[in-house]
Amino acid sequence: GFPGTPGIMGMKGEKGEGAFIHRSAFSVGLTGRVPHPNVPILFSKVFYNEQQHYDVSTGKFRCSVPGMYYFAYHLTVYLSDAKISLYKQDRAVLFTYDQFQPNNVDQASGSVLLHLNAGEEVWLQVYGEGANNGVYADNINDSTFMGFLLYPDLDVH
Amino acid sequence: GFPGTPGIMGMKGEKGEGAFIHRSAFSVGLTGRVPHPNVPILFSKVFYNEQQHYDVSTGKFRCSVPGMYYFAYHLTVYLSDAKISLYKQDRAVLFTYDQFQPNNVDQASGSVLLHLNAGEEVWLQVYGEGANNGVYADNINDSTFMGFLLYPDLDVH
Amino acid sequence: GFPGTPGIMGMKGEKGEGAFIHRSAFSVGLTGRVPHPNVPILFSKVFYNEQQHYDVSTGKFRCSVPGMYYFAYHLTVYLSDAKISLYKQDRAVLFTYDQFQPNNVDQASGSVLLHLNAGEEVWLQVYGEGANNGVYADNINDSTFMGFLLYPDLDVH
Ligand SMILES: [Ca+2]
Ligand SMILES: [Ca+2]
Ligand SMILES: [Ca+2]
Repeated sequence: GFPGTPGIMGMKGEKGEGAFIHRSAFSVGLTGRVPHPNVPILFSKVFYNEQQHYDVSTGKFRCSVPGMYYFAYHLTVYLSDAKISLYKQDRAVLFTYDQFQPNNVDQASGSVLLHLNAGEEVWLQVYGEGANNGVYADNINDSTFMGFLLYPDLDVH
Repeated sequence: GFPGTPGIMGMKGEKGEGAFIHRSAFSVGLTGRVPHPNVPILFSKVFYNEQQHYDVSTGKFRCSVPGMYYFAYHLTVYLSDAKISLYKQDRAVLFTYDQFQPNNVDQASGSVLLHLNAGEEVWLQVYGEGANNGVYADNINDSTFMGFLLYPDLDVH
Repeated sequence: GFPGTPGIMGMKGEKGEGAFIHRSAFSVGLTGRVPHPNVPILFSKVFYNEQQHYDVSTGKFRCSVPGMYYFAYHLTVYLSDAKISLYKQDRAVLFTYDQFQPNNVDQASGSVLLHLNAGEEVWLQVYGEGANNGVYADNINDSTFMGFLLYPDLDVH
């Protein structure tokens, strides 16, 4: 007899991965002068923290989605010099220093791209012996910290 | 008879949703000293405004794609103190203050992540009575403002 | 005889393209004071350069994926005034000027969104005659430069 009819067409491939399945972002601000050196700075004014990956009780961002992140901060320098580091897992990765002079409030900022594995934490902290804790904020002066996932690791899709 | 030949391969899957279907971004600069307090600052030097969501005639960014946006500004502080707020719909959300001293031009910056609904507007404005309008620019000194869509709302896909 | 049974189903189609095929980002820092004006600043401390689109031997980022990019820098101003420009293909696109006064280390920053074609280069350089090269860094004071692809051109997908 004749051969059978050809098989039916294979299934359509899966849809490609979307950009926006993996989201992680926070944007927070300080509500007063940095009170304690040598511990993570607590930013408790929340602009955005939908995924709750920033912990307002510890001041730390904790990575849930492995990938490459952007972090930035903008600090009001008032009353004393400010020396701030961005920490990743107890290591100071980035250092920002700005000296204060009377009647000359300043602004200091920093940003960086870092790859994070799941569970790794990032925060800001006064660097050194605590003399340089001139980071200030009140209800009409901000000092802020933010981060967002830019490129999730390809192998976690 | 013999079985038929196998069916042809299925079609390739659809492209993932991108990231890149929903786009909204602007990057603009000032061309002179801020002339008027208490109104949106007009940034008329355009670095990027492909989707035209920033209106060079009003100084306002208007949200077309609901989602989470990044905004940033970098200001040259010269001739007087500068106090600038980022406004979202007539509410001052973020405050940046930098004092000026003679022979000490300074730089001040801020950034924030904000969720916007369609139609909501964001702009920069001198905060308060107008004494703090020391934001300056000329053809070799920039003061800039930018924003971009980072995560569009999932329900609009 | 009867025709054979139908052929087997064709293979499943390929998965669609993901959003994150196109990646390009770098984040680098200075290791000492800017030594030479009028040439690209060499940032040789690497925070992130996975795609190697930033060349640590020239100080230039070279576009491999056409699209819209974000660039930012944060500079420690110490010992003298600083005037820095972000260059795109030999044209100074963005200018940041900050004056230094003794005992008043400052911070200056800038950011911009730019469309780049493949092969176009972006870097930072002291602007002018070289008097304004007060950009400083050491092992606990950073001056940094970064960039990332935000929206690849749609026609390259
Ligand atoms: Ca100042
Ligand atoms: Ca200064
Ligand atoms: Ca200072």
